[in-house]
Amino acid sequence: MAKKKMHLAQFLVHGPTYHSLAMWRHPETAARNYDWTQPELYQHIAKVCERGKFDMVFFADLNYISDTFRGSLAPALRYATQAPEHDPIPLLSFMAAVTSHIGLGATLSVSHHEPFYAARLWASIDHLTKGRAAWNVVTSLNHNQAANYGEQRQDSETRYERAHEFIQVCQKLWQSWDADAVVMDRENAIFADAGKVRRIEHEGAFFKSRGPLNVTRSPQNGPAILQAGTSPKGIDFAAQYSDAIFAIQPRAEDAANYFNTVKARMASFDRRPQDCKILFGMQPIIGASEAEALDKQALHNSLVPLDGGMTILSAHLDFDLSRLPPDADMTERREPELQRLKTRYRKASGAAMTLAEVAARHGQSVGLPQFVGTPGAVADQMEAFMATAGGDGFMLSPIYCPGAIEEFVDQVVPELQRRGLFRTDYSGRTQRDHLGQD
Amino acid sequence: MAKKKMHLAQFLVHGPTYHSLAMWRHPETAARNYDWTQPELYQHIAKVCERGKFDMVFFADLNYISDTFRGSLAPALRYATQAPEHDPIPLLSFMAAVTSHIGLGATLSVSHHEPFYAARLWASIDHLTKGRAAWNVVTSLNHNQAANYGEQRQDSETRYERAHEFIQVCQKLWQSWDADAVVMDRENAIFADAGKVRRIEHEGAFFKSRGPLNVTRSPQNGPAILQAGTSPKGIDFAAQYSDAIFAIQPRAEDAANYFNTVKARMASFDRRPQDCKILFGMQPIIGASEAEALDKQALHNSLVPLDGGMTILSAHLDFDLSRLPPDADMTERREPELQRLKTRYRKASGAAMTLAEVAARHGQSVGLPQFVGTPGAVADQMEAFMATAGGDGFMLSPIYCPGAIEEFVDQVVPELQRRGLFRTDYSGRTQRDHLGQD
Repeated sequence: MAKKKMHLAQFLVHGPTYHSLAMWRHPETAARNYDWTQPELYQHIAKVCERGKFDMVFFADLNYISDTFRGSLAPALRYATQAPEHDPIPLLSFMAAVTSHIGLGATLSVSHHEPFYAARLWASIDHLTKGRAAWNVVTSLNHNQAANYGEQRQDSETRYERAHEFIQVCQKLWQSWDADAVVMDRENAIFADAGKVRRIEHEGAFFKSRGPLNVTRSPQNGPAILQAGTSPKGIDFAAQYSDAIFAIQPRAEDAANYFNTVKARMASFDRRPQDCKILFGMQPIIGASEAEALDKQALHNSLVPLDGGMTILSAHLDFDLSRLPPDADMTERREPELQRLKTRYRKASGAAMTLAEVAARHGQSVGLPQFVGTPGAVADQMEAFMATAGGDGFMLSPIYCPGAIEEFVDQVVPELQRRGLFRTDYSGRTQRDHLGQD
Repeated sequence: MAKKKMHLAQFLVHGPTYHSLAMWRHPETAARNYDWTQPELYQHIAKVCERGKFDMVFFADLNYISDTFRGSLAPALRYATQAPEHDPIPLLSFMAAVTSHIGLGATLSVSHHEPFYAARLWASIDHLTKGRAAWNVVTSLNHNQAANYGEQRQDSETRYERAHEFIQVCQKLWQSWDADAVVMDRENAIFADAGKVRRIEHEGAFFKSRGPLNVTRSPQNGPAILQAGTSPKGIDFAAQYSDAIFAIQPRAEDAANYFNTVKARMASFDRRPQDCKILFGMQPIIGASEAEALDKQALHNSLVPLDGGMTILSAHLDFDLSRLPPDADMTERREPELQRLKTRYRKASGAAMTLAEVAARHGQSVGLPQFVGTPGAVADQMEAFMATAGGDGFMLSPIYCPGAIEEFVDQVVPELQRRGLFRTDYSGRTQRDHLGQD
């Protein structure tokens, strides 16, 4: 019986660091004249990942610089903890211009836009990429981001209600042109058949829009939808609309729970399990020998300053960790903001971790498990994780750039292909073709 | 004494028609397998215009399909009158990927966004194009566009007050990072000097934003600013902020008045006349002989359906012209919406025009003068228009695509260069370098 194939996505940020705070200063990054502000870097990465037959390259995105740690912007600026981050959407076209198959995904928060704008932008990108667009739909909750947009933070209930309506308006707009509405009858001067274009006349709790969209039906009828929700409301949202979900689960057992929860929730929306692929984040660290890989891991992890880890962890919790001593036992904390740390960070032994240990780990990978070893050993760990978690594949995050991406494509992908765990070529052209391949 | 050199911009729309409603159905367009939804067309145009040393390619943009004529979407869809129009901003990156010097401009309405979003988007594009970005700042007033965004139309006073504050917030955000804030000190783990990045703490009548932007200082410190205002408030806005203005003035005498008004207004903002270039729209129709050019003009103009002209003119006036008979004498109309037609459309003789005549002209070129003849004769007409109007150059709009753009670049540009009226090469790399060249 053929083995279940993986789906692979390359995680990116239009900035100097991704999940690893060491990335921008790692000697392997420095050696490559790393200029994260320029499109040539991302065009190169897109070509490498297309050579590796990845489902997609994907950009996370934020609209703020965090001041949570010590109540100051200074640590985030010093350690480049998710700062700066340039708008990733203009990069998708640059990358599309030099590739033909790989999917191109990015985050756009629905919190600061109207559905007409988002629907129009993504339908246009879907046309221009010939059906390779993917939109990671997020709602924004950080107090720094709200302040940049002159807004109050909304409660989680309202944010998700608004997001549901947002995406439903987008879907109506994407369907406002029939696929055969454009007739281009030059002789009789009939560009489009007006009977095949409709108003949507949406009037809801949050939005009004008459339509129609002024974009014709796009190749995928709107982009593929991505999500990364972990709260019950987030899982509901993802189960209802998403073609793929990115999830951070350090331990395969927790990943299995998450996987089963989402797939069960999908059934309640009349969707089949295979309609939404769940990709678990991981950080590959590859060496020619086990010893070399362990040395690489040690070097990388040593390049993450502890205060950098404190900064990014404070940002993610929206809780100033400078209020706690570094040796605080995190299993004993009672603050509600710190509760989810208890499941994310546990030693293999189950022993307690101090704040300094947790912050260091967070600065290294934001909770992504590190898969360390020879290409064969990394493939083994991926296979084992899938066997336990039941996942559909992985979202990869590099420890240096672009070298670590090249190493995975050139060394691990062939091993996965040999084992029948990953496609040897694309069988379709669109983002949904790739994600739909079983 | 050296002659004053022209600036040249190529007008584009991410749609099937520009100023000419005949464009999509013209045989010369059809012969080129015209697919206006695909990036390859625009990449080709960008390369042609860069070969011609143009200052920029520029996209207009709208967020609606007009239902003003006959109260129905059907005529706009049938005749492709500014419908559909896909989002042009994703095209800028595609075009940047295959060019190195030409400026890349597009319209983004400020009516439906927050300044933080626009400032971040344009600063990111300015980085990725290495300083070639230009933003046409518009405020939107059409009732169809407002309805797509669930908004009421704002009065003109409020729209412009909001636009002033919008661009001022953007300017503060673009200045929130000093040019030398990024130090990339890998040894000491110092990415940026936090002392060189500032909050803006803006709190105004329309917007609040704390900042800083999460985009580093861009090559032009924000994009070049474009404008197309003709009302007194629009002229004020343009005179205060713009690096270039696009203006439609069918008659050189009116163009001269407009030119002098803007340049005088600039002085009141302490700006020099050369700080903002005024480019007048025109539609070149080029033939190997005078007779061939006149035949091309006649063929082109005959391909514009009268109802198409009625549709686009109704949209631009937001007045349903189906309420008037086609032979209505437009100089006699008293409706306030129709007043500006009296100055835009006058016969050379000064005689009155009927609605049908005005609508036909509007469908042919939206009021752009047609410069018709051999390459030398077109250059003569450009030179004569400049001599009367005092303009800084032209914004060109083709009668078919992409052939008419290629003809201008290959036949008229060399003639202008021979006469010392246009640059023979770029002297700088950024959009402001090109526009600033005298």
